[in-house]
Amino acid sequence: MSGFFDLVHHQRAYRTFSDEPVDDATIGRLLDAAVHAPSAENRQPWEFVVVQDPALRSSLLDFAEKAWDGGGREFAEARLTPGLMADVERGIAGGGYRDAPVLIVVAADIERGLKVTVPSSIFPAIQNLLLAATELGLASALTTISMGFTEDLQAMLGLPAHVVPQAVIPIGHPVRPLGPSKRDPFETHTHRDRFGTPW
Amino acid sequence: MSGFFDLVHHQRAYRTFSDEPVDDATIGRLLDAAVHAPSAENRQPWEFVVVQDPALRSSLLDFAEKAWDGGGREFAEARLTPGLMADVERGIAGGGYRDAPVLIVVAADIERGLKVTVPSSIFPAIQNLLLAATELGLASALTTISMGFTEDLQAMLGLPAHVVPQAVIPIGHPVRPLGPSKRDPFETHTHRDRFGTPW
Repeated sequence: MSGFFDLVHHQRAYRTFSDEPVDDATIGRLLDAAVHAPSAENRQPWEFVVVQDPALRSSLLDFAEKAWDGGGREFAEARLTPGLMADVERGIAGGGYRDAPVLIVVAADIERGLKVTVPSSIFPAIQNLLLAATELGLASALTTISMGFTEDLQAMLGLPAHVVPQAVIPIGHPVRPLGPSKRDPFETHTHRDRFGTPW
Repeated sequence: MSGFFDLVHHQRAYRTFSDEPVDDATIGRLLDAAVHAPSAENRQPWEFVVVQDPALRSSLLDFAEKAWDGGGREFAEARLTPGLMADVERGIAGGGYRDAPVLIVVAADIERGLKVTVPSSIFPAIQNLLLAATELGLASALTTISMGFTEDLQAMLGLPAHVVPQAVIPIGHPVRPLGPSKRDPFETHTHRDRFGTPW
């Protein structure tokens, strides 16, 4: 990428991955970027479980598929565009995420940080991680669909009760790079001084 | 900044600001970066109120000070390092944030997006905004201390009930640039396959 603003325009959710591995040094660069995000009280309440073991990866993604089959798909059908729906279907149920060689489970330690500040303390770190992946030409996605299975995920990964999963991030190489993202122009959702006064 | 990884190491919470103004084009660049973040179902549920009016800015920061005086300071004293405590005191009660020429209130539209996905849909955008500010040499901070006053903030800014404030971000120029941030090394909070297995 030719600079930060170019980078943010090219961050995309990937739902297909090649089987090319990602080495530990590269994963370390992603995590180093993550931990430099801000967190409430500078408590750094993140815990990362880097799952590379094939059987564990498979079991982890079974929960996403279970959530999708158990109502997620039906709910999404009424809400997503057909293109996005097909893409998500491919990622969760079509084996897309299963090709990713690395799954990073991001969890919050709610004894180290406060429960109420988990969102503002964890998702900035996740965004750093996703941007770092994009910067290095890697494919990634932010998924939260299996978060309904908190206790199952904790049991599977040996997480203590106070370490609560927040997201699962598949990391790998793209089958093909995606173009820049499309968004509503910021002006659509920006107000001057008071809501409703156009920017 | 000389690249993305340098940028993330230099993102810092600023709690003092010079009185130099920030022009609209610059604010637009920050918001454009924000809206290119991922969001659940690509719902882009963010709404930004850019508050520059001095009386409104002052009233907005009164809520932060009220939260700080009404228990926040006492709670923080037992949790923050003395250096961070003094810094936060300066920002909230010592006029630090009041010098910032721009306050960006980031809110979530919980009709457009789902309430349960607000954290994963709003804080990545906020992190993009903070990184963009850093990239442009601006000072910024992620504050959530006044979020207990949801209805007061909604009344003051004319936000409908379904547009819920998530953070207030002061933006301005630094009095002096801060050095890189200090964090626990990522290895301290990273596990291989299962919690407790060192990276």
